[in-house]
Amino acid sequence: MPERAVAFANDAFYDAFRRADPEAMAALWAVSAPVSCIHPGGSVLRGRDAVLASWHAIFAGASSAEIDCRGAQVALQGEVAVVTCYEVIRGGTLAASNLYVHEAGVWRMVHHQAGPTAAAPPPPEPAPDARMH
Amino acid sequence: MPERAVAFANDAFYDAFRRADPEAMAALWAVSAPVSCIHPGGSVLRGRDAVLASWHAIFAGASSAEIDCRGAQVALQGEVAVVTCYEVIRGGTLAASNLYVHEAGVWRMVHHQAGPTAAAPPPPEPAPDARMH
Repeated sequence: MPERAVAFANDAFYDAFRRADPEAMAALWAVSAPVSCIHPGGSVLRGRDAVLASWHAIFAGASSAEIDCRGAQVALQGEVAVVTCYEVIRGGTLAASNLYVHEAGVWRMVHHQAGPTAAAPPPPEPAPDARMH
Repeated sequence: MPERAVAFANDAFYDAFRRADPEAMAALWAVSAPVSCIHPGGSVLRGRDAVLASWHAIFAGASSAEIDCRGAQVALQGEVAVVTCYEVIRGGTLAASNLYVHEAGVWRMVHHQAGPTAAAPPPPEPAPDARMH
């Protein structure tokens, strides 16, 4: 089930974001494929160096971030996956697009854009343990 | 050169937007592939019906829109293309992500997100005629 593997990659992205972990963030972005990123209010960043530098700057001085990904849905376009979702961060809500490509056997991020939304986010999802029972 | 074909599709998108033409807009979105769209401040729209209805609403009552796409760059991910660019619209500037898939021999849109940016947009590009000379 590629959708499940993509959802796992998307969870790993928000986990790295939440832990403000630049190494984990670097590991999940694509190496061979061209990458780009548009942070809320920011400019268009292109290339792995510019994108990873932006995450370093976001994580600088922070030991963690309160971010919750809600209502994520995976749409497969062959070897590319588009995840659309909401991000609840410091009480505000963003709408986000996350793109992944299947590279070297794993789904790696190639693009991220998040921007403010007036939409109410979906409720938090139950933790994996709770979903099992 | 697929990049050129994608740039052409991206120009067609902004042309349909500029002319507030719902039929042209409908024709350039993918039919088989799953589609999604996040307008500035809006919710995550998924599925062709919801996406096209949103463009109908945007175009309702307008005979045209002043929108200028600047600094567009195409990144190919196999059969999927990611275009990142700036949109200058009614004096404001947005940063945008446009995704296209190669479907039935043409590049069709599968995802669009635009959101406000504090970045200064690149200068307008010369018209095709000017570039020829």
